[in-house]
Amino acid sequence: MPGEFDFIDWIRSQTSAQERILIPPGDDLAAVRWDPADLLLVGADQVIDGVHFDSAVHSPRDIGAKAMNRNLSDCAAMACLPAAAVVTVALPVGTSIDYARQLYLGIRAAGEKFDCPIVGGDTASWPGKLIISVTILGRSAGIEPVRRRGAKPGDGIFVTGPLGGSLLGRHMTFEPKINVARALAAARQLTAMIDLSDGLSRDLAHVCRESNVGALIDAAQIPIHQDVSRMPGGGRSPLEHALHDGEDYELLFTGPVELGQSSHTLIGRITAEPGIRLQHLDGQVEALNPGGWQHNF
Amino acid sequence: MPGEFDFIDWIRSQTSAQERILIPPGDDLAAVRWDPADLLLVGADQVIDGVHFDSAVHSPRDIGAKAMNRNLSDCAAMACLPAAAVVTVALPVGTSIDYARQLYLGIRAAGEKFDCPIVGGDTASWPGKLIISVTILGRSAGIEPVRRRGAKPGDGIFVTGPLGGSLLGRHMTFEPKINVARALAAARQLTAMIDLSDGLSRDLAHVCRESNVGALIDAAQIPIHQDVSRMPGGGRSPLEHALHDGEDYELLFTGPVELGQSSHTLIGRITAEPGIRLQHLDGQVEALNPGGWQHNF
Repeated sequence: MPGEFDFIDWIRSQTSAQERILIPPGDDLAAVRWDPADLLLVGADQVIDGVHFDSAVHSPRDIGAKAMNRNLSDCAAMACLPAAAVVTVALPVGTSIDYARQLYLGIRAAGEKFDCPIVGGDTASWPGKLIISVTILGRSAGIEPVRRRGAKPGDGIFVTGPLGGSLLGRHMTFEPKINVARALAAARQLTAMIDLSDGLSRDLAHVCRESNVGALIDAAQIPIHQDVSRMPGGGRSPLEHALHDGEDYELLFTGPVELGQSSHTLIGRITAEPGIRLQHLDGQVEALNPGGWQHNF
Repeated sequence: MPGEFDFIDWIRSQTSAQERILIPPGDDLAAVRWDPADLLLVGADQVIDGVHFDSAVHSPRDIGAKAMNRNLSDCAAMACLPAAAVVTVALPVGTSIDYARQLYLGIRAAGEKFDCPIVGGDTASWPGKLIISVTILGRSAGIEPVRRRGAKPGDGIFVTGPLGGSLLGRHMTFEPKINVARALAAARQLTAMIDLSDGLSRDLAHVCRESNVGALIDAAQIPIHQDVSRMPGGGRSPLEHALHDGEDYELLFTGPVELGQSSHTLIGRITAEPGIRLQHLDGQVEALNPGGWQHNF
């Protein structure tokens, strides 16, 4: 990108001082102060043109926001608080400074909603398409991280909202459910949690495998998003969309069935028997194979 | 990539238990334990096919190693110890599992030399070329991080080794100078430091700008790597290669001129006057404009 260093200057001018940041962006590494009693959690996720967004359709603000929000949703999945992020961006040759700034502002604005500043990273240009990689640092902040591996036979399986059809737009505009996750984890005995990025069928399989359990899902209880009714035909039923579409970024969690309340929906039970089975209204039970995330533009 | 989840399983099977890692790869985020007295430093850098390596020429082991080593070199530049890394990889559609494993093993082996495990990340396939983004977490571990911004007029300017011609191979095989940096920072009064990734002329400009100073470089003192003699002709003198080629990953640091010793070379002085000037053997002084990193395959 022409003017890469100008762009870095501009980024630095956008970074406000925060007590937690001892060395801000602009050096080889940033330095972050941690509360000694806090666990540090760290993960990374990328968004890729043609896979997670379409640069011909989506705005740079929305693309940047999605790059950050996917990582914030991982914080939600662990019930931790975001603390800081670093970002690498590979920009197509010829990207304008204004476009790059809009990307950055989208990333930053999404982080700011959760007090999560960008503290460093790298920008390069290349003769390929846009990729953004975000690494997030989170802190446990008094709540034990909720992992994928604690689900027990008899636990209820819950989701925090309706599923399916996210490709119509919600996959770019979702709100990470950090506050919901923290409230749930602080008040109740969650045994496992994950965010629904790959699709209910695949993400539940992750939880089951990590926990060495199975699951029985009640098809009639799965909340189906109204967007599903607007999805183009392709042989999938509304239920199949809700099971397999992915990128909903709702939370799936397990725990005592008494957890059921209006803010989330009990959709099934954890079983000792391995494998995921789906029970239909007529009582028929079938094996549910992970369909998972496979949308293409 | 077909078998992405198999690949993630394989990665997890490669991760050995370490006391510092409270939650290993496989969850939404990893958890890392920090010594309360340590500063946490964090930065990210990416390597891109056709920009930082050529997948038609370089082996996946070397490509992976370079991705990690660039970040370890940033740790060297701050005189901190690497502690953990997260990695995102965008693999071209059709990449074999074996190729992906070799990439991972290259990243891991480079980190292991400095006790820096991979604790998480993300793998995706896409119809583009290979990109690896590495985020590194470092810890100050008893040594104040050396920044770019402390150079003072009168300070000597030092480099830790010969420069130029790295494109012939050293840019893929360099050793991050963490031990050298830690030893220098522990024993002496370094005022600023940076790793030479963009080229002496541009990286020195970063230090000068951050420190609000200038520099006078003695052309005759700049150590020129023997590789320069094998560089294809193109109108650049050996000195120009050493000044501008970049990707040497030697360290440039400033401090009292008495720091000079056999392990590094005094190449000039920091000046109060802004700008970088180059003094030739005949006494002529000219302004040195950052040429910087611009190699293309």
